Amino acid sequence: MAVITTIGAGMMGSGIAFPACTNGHTVRLVGTPLDDKIIKYGKETGYHLTLKHDVNGTQTSFKMPEGVSFHCYDEFSEMLKGADILLCGVSSFGLSWFCENIVPLIPEDLPVLSVTKGMIDDGTGTGHLISYPEYMQCFSKKKLNINAVGGPCTSYELADHDPTEVAFCGKDPETLKWLKSIYETDYYHISLSTDVRGVECAVALKNAYALAVSLAVGLSHKREGRDFQHYNSQAALFGQASKEMEKLLMLFGGRHESLWFGIGDLYVTVFGGRTRKIGTLLGEGLNYDEAMEKLKGVTLESIVITGRTADAVVRLSESGLADISEFPLLMHIRSLLSENAKVDIPWSDFETDYFQA
Amino acid sequence: MAVITTIGAGMMGSGIAFPACTNGHTVRLVGTPLDDKIIKYGKETGYHLTLKHDVNGTQTSFKMPEGVSFHCYDEFSEMLKGADILLCGVSSFGLSWFCENIVPLIPEDLPVLSVTKGMIDDGTGTGHLISYPEYMQCFSKKKLNINAVGGPCTSYELADHDPTEVAFCGKDPETLKWLKSIYETDYYHISLSTDVRGVECAVALKNAYALAVSLAVGLSHKREGRDFQHYNSQAALFGQASKEMEKLLMLFGGRHESLWFGIGDLYVTVFGGRTRKIGTLLGEGLNYDEAMEKLKGVTLESIVITGRTADAVVRLSESGLADISEFPLLMHIRSLLSENAKVDIPWSDFETDYFQA
Repeated sequence: MAVITTIGAGMMGSGIAFPACTNGHTVRLVGTPLDDKIIKYGKETGYHLTLKHDVNGTQTSFKMPEGVSFHCYDEFSEMLKGADILLCGVSSFGLSWFCENIVPLIPEDLPVLSVTKGMIDDGTGTGHLISYPEYMQCFSKKKLNINAVGGPCTSYELADHDPTEVAFCGKDPETLKWLKSIYETDYYHISLSTDVRGVECAVALKNAYALAVSLAVGLSHKREGRDFQHYNSQAALFGQASKEMEKLLMLFGGRHESLWFGIGDLYVTVFGGRTRKIGTLLGEGLNYDEAMEKLKGVTLESIVITGRTADAVVRLSESGLADISEFPLLMHIRSLLSENAKVDIPWSDFETDYFQA
Repeated sequence: MAVITTIGAGMMGSGIAFPACTNGHTVRLVGTPLDDKIIKYGKETGYHLTLKHDVNGTQTSFKMPEGVSFHCYDEFSEMLKGADILLCGVSSFGLSWFCENIVPLIPEDLPVLSVTKGMIDDGTGTGHLISYPEYMQCFSKKKLNINAVGGPCTSYELADHDPTEVAFCGKDPETLKWLKSIYETDYYHISLSTDVRGVECAVALKNAYALAVSLAVGLSHKREGRDFQHYNSQAALFGQASKEMEKLLMLFGGRHESLWFGIGDLYVTVFGGRTRKIGTLLGEGLNYDEAMEKLKGVTLESIVITGRTADAVVRLSESGLADISEFPLLMHIRSLLSENAKVDIPWSDFETDYFQA
């Protein structure tokens, strides 16, 4: 049985403990310095402070499965001893902290599995983005074995054993197969891919586009003057989103086969949580500042990742490497987020003539 | 201003009158022999008997827009005089009737626009499917100009002016541009494509796969013992569906660019009506016979189209032209519909290893 040391006790870092424990493995859940409350609560009760599910209308904390122990950050070095896997469970906002404080401590022979999804500027000033695993490697002189998880999977539904299929991506097929043997259960199905850039890109992009599809929810609310949804407009935006995501995936050097994980992830994100909330508010006609005022205190990874992706496309287009007219939906989202523009879906720009002999 | 003679006064044939009338055109809504009640009701009230929307929780008939007149089938020949467009608004079940009774009457210079979506066996016994417009042409000695509509668009939301983007497909770009000039409004956006096979294939496939995604809704209901949805499993099925749809599109001779209309259409179909209902019942554990017993009297185009597509793939595989192991989700749906099997999502068959240097 494997010992998994997790750093970051947030929802996804904690949620992925469920399939590991279903298979009888041991998970040492180590909080970052920001996770003290979660760890304290977990030590005292065995329940998770923030990972919750709906039980007959009430949000109820999950009891963490047998095999999980809770640890504060000052125990991290101790907990690293004897670990077979280091699981990176920080959010995108914790990425720099993880790279600076944790990556240098990782032994060369300890495989890393990261649930932190995303892409970041490669620092060359050209607009090219690289995946988080590629970025993490830059902070170590050792040759690390960093793998990542992509695909449709919200933490609270994973903890609830709702079946899904995700992708584990990394450079070494043998490591991937071994990680799969640890995590695969009858509710957590795993494809494997060496296209790290593609899987991370596809699942990072869904943030921007889930926000875009959610605009239609807000537009319906506004038009109807009530909590009512139309699906034609959501569906048309979903189709346009899929089309732009494929182009972006190619642009950032991913492989086409990774698109399906991004499309699945887009679907689940449209129906989950905070990204939908801000998209709906923007769709109802609020500008970004007004929407954030309403969502006081909410941290939105999706906003950061969206801005980063859209900025990258603009910079690539300035070098002639991308054509921004191919990404009208992403550019509209960019104007909403960075220019405080009001929603005005550029429907006509989506229209395309496909004429061939 | 154009005169559009519509044959078939069902929901979609009638719904597409809305954008045409928004633009000031005239629509002669001619019922098939099965539409007498709709026509009688329309003549008496100006409202549509079956095209309804939710008004504060009550299903309420739409008033048909100014410019629409109602006609019984015996007026069809008269109504064809002076028409600029013949709109085919029959369902898949009316296709044979349309081909035998209407197609031979169509003048060579009268463009046809069809909202009837689908693919049908090409009659060669090999399993190859052709699009409805290709099939319709077989029933005329004249060279007809048959165009069709694909993409995400439910009739009642179109009548409700919810924005969407669809594809008009046909062989002649000039006809397509002219049809677009008739129908394009600020809530009905139109891309054009000469890939008739691809657009029709993509939107036909969504029937099978919307049923597949809906299985997850029923599975959640059953597991929870209440009306509660999980989205991880829906999303994973949606991703697998998109992947299989792309492969099928290529298999049946469509072009990749038509996929996005199918994905949008898949999304809207998951949330609309009868296909979701039967998928949910099958997901809850009923077999097909039990589910149909519950849905007494409901006609399901999706079932017909699903069976036809799945059978075609099996026949193509028998000739070595397709590999059924690439379509595990479609094959599971086939076993549910034609073998009365119980739901058992083949999750492991979705898993793929993408290893490349």
